[in-house]
Amino acid sequence: MSQDLLQANAATPGDDLEDIALGEDYALTSEYVEMVVDAADRGDGMRLRDLLSALHPADVADLMGFLSQAHRSEVLPWVPPALLAETLPELDDGIREDILEEVTPGALAEALQELDSDDAAALVEDLDAERRREVLAAMPESERAVIESSLAYGEDTAGRLMQREVMAAPQFWTVGQTIDHMRAQGDDLPELFFDIYVVDPGFKPVGGVPVSHLLRARREVALSELMEPINEVAVDLDQEEVAYVFEKYHLISAPVVDQSGRLVGQITVDDIVNIIQEENQEDILALAGVSDAGRDAGVMDVVRSRFPWLAVNLGTALIASTVIALYRAEIEQLVALAVLMPIVASIGGNAGTQALAVAVRALSNRELNASNTLRVVSRELMVGLLNGVGVALLLGGATWLWFREPALSLTIGLAVIINLMAAALAGTLAPLLLDRMGRDPAVSSPVFVTWATDTIGFFSFLALAGLILL
Amino acid sequence: MSQDLLQANAATPGDDLEDIALGEDYALTSEYVEMVVDAADRGDGMRLRDLLSALHPADVADLMGFLSQAHRSEVLPWVPPALLAETLPELDDGIREDILEEVTPGALAEALQELDSDDAAALVEDLDAERRREVLAAMPESERAVIESSLAYGEDTAGRLMQREVMAAPQFWTVGQTIDHMRAQGDDLPELFFDIYVVDPGFKPVGGVPVSHLLRARREVALSELMEPINEVAVDLDQEEVAYVFEKYHLISAPVVDQSGRLVGQITVDDIVNIIQEENQEDILALAGVSDAGRDAGVMDVVRSRFPWLAVNLGTALIASTVIALYRAEIEQLVALAVLMPIVASIGGNAGTQALAVAVRALSNRELNASNTLRVVSRELMVGLLNGVGVALLLGGATWLWFREPALSLTIGLAVIINLMAAALAGTLAPLLLDRMGRDPAVSSPVFVTWATDTIGFFSFLALAGLILL
Repeated sequence: MSQDLLQANAATPGDDLEDIALGEDYALTSEYVEMVVDAADRGDGMRLRDLLSALHPADVADLMGFLSQAHRSEVLPWVPPALLAETLPELDDGIREDILEEVTPGALAEALQELDSDDAAALVEDLDAERRREVLAAMPESERAVIESSLAYGEDTAGRLMQREVMAAPQFWTVGQTIDHMRAQGDDLPELFFDIYVVDPGFKPVGGVPVSHLLRARREVALSELMEPINEVAVDLDQEEVAYVFEKYHLISAPVVDQSGRLVGQITVDDIVNIIQEENQEDILALAGVSDAGRDAGVMDVVRSRFPWLAVNLGTALIASTVIALYRAEIEQLVALAVLMPIVASIGGNAGTQALAVAVRALSNRELNASNTLRVVSRELMVGLLNGVGVALLLGGATWLWFREPALSLTIGLAVIINLMAAALAGTLAPLLLDRMGRDPAVSSPVFVTWATDTIGFFSFLALAGLILL
Repeated sequence: MSQDLLQANAATPGDDLEDIALGEDYALTSEYVEMVVDAADRGDGMRLRDLLSALHPADVADLMGFLSQAHRSEVLPWVPPALLAETLPELDDGIREDILEEVTPGALAEALQELDSDDAAALVEDLDAERRREVLAAMPESERAVIESSLAYGEDTAGRLMQREVMAAPQFWTVGQTIDHMRAQGDDLPELFFDIYVVDPGFKPVGGVPVSHLLRARREVALSELMEPINEVAVDLDQEEVAYVFEKYHLISAPVVDQSGRLVGQITVDDIVNIIQEENQEDILALAGVSDAGRDAGVMDVVRSRFPWLAVNLGTALIASTVIALYRAEIEQLVALAVLMPIVASIGGNAGTQALAVAVRALSNRELNASNTLRVVSRELMVGLLNGVGVALLLGGATWLWFREPALSLTIGLAVIINLMAAALAGTLAPLLLDRMGRDPAVSSPVFVTWATDTIGFFSFLALAGLILL
């Protein structure tokens, strides 16, 4: 099938290539990737250039992710320079670093000038000190200054995210004056803007006018009549907070102000979409105990991103095992205890993970604060109790069918109820406490929750067995 | 402290209330929630109105989430009608259903007319058949028709997300004609728009002009000179795919077209931000085995959202236990096996969760397809092997320190290596296969991965023990 496609399309012009590049789900098709690999293997540069030129920068970046490092080096020289510049900000970090190393400082300096100041600064930041100096030296003074001042803001702050170009206007201007100004000053304006920021004589924003409102108004209307309240963003605000503000108030753009309240730049929602995606995916990975090694990471990078968590969990599992060791005599006497005890720990772990995911989600949506903590924690405890009773009935029944020993059913039932309540508490309180301490609740909670449910699971079951059964 | 705040602000006007409502992180403060609760308890309606009027609709929705049901009923009558209308789309589903029941059909019909057609349709959809009929009957013919035709599209499709109002212009218009048209037709245009869609005589989009480009151009320039290629969205495209297109191409708005390619509406990025957030959070919850019961869900709703998963896991844990039961004789002979076996299963479970989270993330970013599956799976296997060797050394060492029995160290080391490779396979292949079958990879994979790592963990350790030790 992919072979047929290859032949059918070998002679088609660039326009049709676009149609087969993307599937119905707008993702790059594996057939297209194979066509590129095939052309690279044949060393067919003309074909590579056709295949690449048919793609949007985001799809070129995607393609690079699908290629092996060897194929990437083969393909890279055939990416037209302007397309390469636009592709760089779209690439995964690891792949971008590789590619940046293969480009000369001069070519890179040229590529950077095609980009918005925020994207250019982000790229320069990734370079090592030596290369950064070379690349900046190859840029014109003014562009270099813009990038350097962007890098002066803390990583992951609004200052880094913002573009310095904004469309600002004094409030006494009319719609007509504003449009005339825009026509005259076109080059100094941001490439895209969605709001005009109305400023006072001290250049502090006092309101905003969506461009679609400006376009609908008559030329003689004053901006002060059209303007609406706006949400300012402080230049040192963390990007996660910036994303929250955009999401909450459905913003398309926001003015960024410095400590004295002066307008210094704008942030637009297209940059925020990436951050929301990143922050959410960090939570998914953090809850699973893995840092993102990137799609192109080598085996050793991936090992490094996962081993620490496994080592920590090994520690907690060993602690839980010392609890079992305390009850060796009981297990020797009744080996059914060894058969059943992992079930108590396992169900507890699952219930703890459920409570934890719900709490982490609520915290990241700012749905949990001092005013409802008590209500949420007591609800979780009730849920733990009720689920515990439900699981206890099922598990007690299964145990009876298996071992025909009612006291064993009672023991495991009680242990499950205790462990599911413990899981509810641990899964809710661990992220709450970490958040209160200013730490990321997704990062360290899972290890604590697993440790608690393992230890309490083994202990409650074996200790109760000692009391009830033996 | 919160008491001081209450008194200090009791007499301040609405403007200052706004300042204390939100914390530095732009989230509603617990102090403000307590001020509202306090006023509700005192039955102080005037105070409630002041407190509520100082808030943005998104913050009123947030406030409702923090209040108990009783307090919510107390507060509701004091929300000004226009503010209530804007608040409805922002509310959590469960809370919105409660509130919609307390509002009369007439009042609701009026509120709906203040909203965009997509928001209004989403609200009407939530009503039961009887109430939906009443509310639609109370609306003017034209608005009813808009809502009914929106509801005719499948749930979670572009058709549901879109607004029907668009700013379209034929390609032979000049900038001046377009602006004059917008000034004249103001009321029929969308409240906000960011691109002008250029259409052919068949009303099919042929390009787009960002408003900021239109504003910068001279009046005599033709739209055909300014227009850029645009990404169309089919009216029946799933919202997740729509979000992917927006995110990938950094879109601010996109035209929606019907089967014949005619322009029928527009989707703007502010609606997409919510969907990206929702889809990600669904993944977080699905991986933890919990469906979202909503922040306001009662205890029984939460139990129902979590019990099924616990019951399924109980089943898999029982299956894993039957493996242990096969080796009862070995455990009776050497009770250290019972002490150590949960460690092998637990580490395997952790490694499987890591691989699973990475695969689910890669799938949702469309980073995995036929062209790199083999590479990714073999990388995961290598990672499993190397992490397995690392953990085996640590755990073998710990076991030796504890039990002074080298053969036991060897047994557990080999078992861990086997289980970590199994975890890598299960954690990667389960989501890949589910995705290939068109199912959500986050939903059913975890149960399979846990079952595999538990069963293989116990089996490899106990069977090896039988071979090596006994």
